[in-house]
Amino acid sequence: MMQQPHEWPVRIYYEDTDMQGIVYYANYLKYLERARTEFLRSKGFEQDELIDEQGVVFAVRAVQMDYLKPAQFNDKLIVKTEIYEIKRASIIFQQTIVRADKNREIINKAKIKVACLEALKMKVKAIPKQMSIQLK
Amino acid sequence: MMQQPHEWPVRIYYEDTDMQGIVYYANYLKYLERARTEFLRSKGFEQDELIDEQGVVFAVRAVQMDYLKPAQFNDKLIVKTEIYEIKRASIIFQQTIVRADKNREIINKAKIKVACLEALKMKVKAIPKQMSIQLK
Amino acid sequence: MMQQPHEWPVRIYYEDTDMQGIVYYANYLKYLERARTEFLRSKGFEQDELIDEQGVVFAVRAVQMDYLKPAQFNDKLIVKTEIYEIKRASIIFQQTIVRADKNREIINKAKIKVACLEALKMKVKAIPKQMSIQLK
Amino acid sequence: MMQQPHEWPVRIYYEDTDMQGIVYYANYLKYLERARTEFLRSKGFEQDELIDEQGVVFAVRAVQMDYLKPAQFNDKLIVKTEIYEIKRASIIFQQTIVRADKNREIINKAKIKVACLEALKMKVKAIPKQMSIQLK
Repeated sequence: MMQQPHEWPVRIYYEDTDMQGIVYYANYLKYLERARTEFLRSKGFEQDELIDEQGVVFAVRAVQMDYLKPAQFNDKLIVKTEIYEIKRASIIFQQTIVRADKNREIINKAKIKVACLEALKMKVKAIPKQMSIQLK
Repeated sequence: MMQQPHEWPVRIYYEDTDMQGIVYYANYLKYLERARTEFLRSKGFEQDELIDEQGVVFAVRAVQMDYLKPAQFNDKLIVKTEIYEIKRASIIFQQTIVRADKNREIINKAKIKVACLEALKMKVKAIPKQMSIQLK
Repeated sequence: MMQQPHEWPVRIYYEDTDMQGIVYYANYLKYLERARTEFLRSKGFEQDELIDEQGVVFAVRAVQMDYLKPAQFNDKLIVKTEIYEIKRASIIFQQTIVRADKNREIINKAKIKVACLEALKMKVKAIPKQMSIQLK
Repeated sequence: MMQQPHEWPVRIYYEDTDMQGIVYYANYLKYLERARTEFLRSKGFEQDELIDEQGVVFAVRAVQMDYLKPAQFNDKLIVKTEIYEIKRASIIFQQTIVRADKNREIINKAKIKVACLEALKMKVKAIPKQMSIQLK
């Protein structure tokens, strides 16, 4: 069954802009990461609990991102997040940032691969079964 | 004739780390951008002068990045920068971050596409000829 | 008549933390600035319109901040903002960051002085009258 | 005997600027912290070793900062760091940011109070004796 992507709003502040008057390119990765955190939260998974209770953390392994339109101060954006692929020890998220208005112009498209790691040793570890099932 | 890639050192400070004890994934984009600025400077191009005198800015259009190893507080890294491809109005940079020691372990590999834009209108514009020639 | 301070929520994400597992000290200034932006918005003032229509920007001139308790990943905070003093060409904001729960433990207390400047020349300029009246 | 303050250079990149075309106010705290790290390093103290070997970390307790002049893209600055006061479990640093040219115009003046804490419990702890002596 098709699911709607998870949506998370982002407002652009001074901290986000650079001297070109637009959002600095590294900052979009922050919005994507906030949205993945909220996506996981919406599915019942808190990353601090995953560390404490399951001993796992997620670390980004690959980023692929296209910058289609610039965002500016005061802009209201929406980050749309869905799972593109889930494997034994990694997840590929598909994330799109759009304007929070009727037209929903696309600002940014990304695929982010995260690996599941053992919290202290930082070695690859299978995604907890419960989590893997619920995210599929 | 083959050219050695440009090298730029980066030291990791508190500001760069996150609660996993490693460099936060968005921050590598800052190091890549510092290194591109220094690469251009080493070729005689100052981006503020390019804006004032030529009316052009460069904006990132695409990022492709693989995170191979984590970097940590106090680590000394080197960003290696070279031009992968240069077109009429865009440049693809190939950038690799390695440890600043004998083994030069690779931390991070990236391809960054930047577009040349008219400074105020933010419309695509040909790279200034002088610049294009010198970067090839 | 006494006014309640303006309140603005902040959630702590990975981007906010450092390797001590707590919020990096510079990042609180971002939350304070988001809250000042939202405070002004709640009074009817958009900073991009102030630049375009009135030709004024606000620049921080002084920061005084006490860090009382650390905040951590996933914490929900509230930034309380009120005007401490308003002069011809400057405003001192009083801002307090508290936990967003019943106890409202204080994390951080700050006084931030901002100056009103002419947008392009960056010279001191009187706060627009309309604004000054409404903020008092 | 009077000591010259420690000096540490900072170059301003895109990441540092905001849409006013100047350095975003929170970012100066990063430069101050880089300079304190290098100040301690110059005295023989590495903060990661202090955690591992002595079980202590330093956390900022108070910031007082005056923004006198704006810095811009490509500017070369110097952070001057000296100890203003050292107590049993805290240090107050005096830090000044100046332009890296002949005139050394002052950009920014700050006093930063850091507390010495037990690394895991984050409770106040006396500064290691060896360190305290050497910093005086």
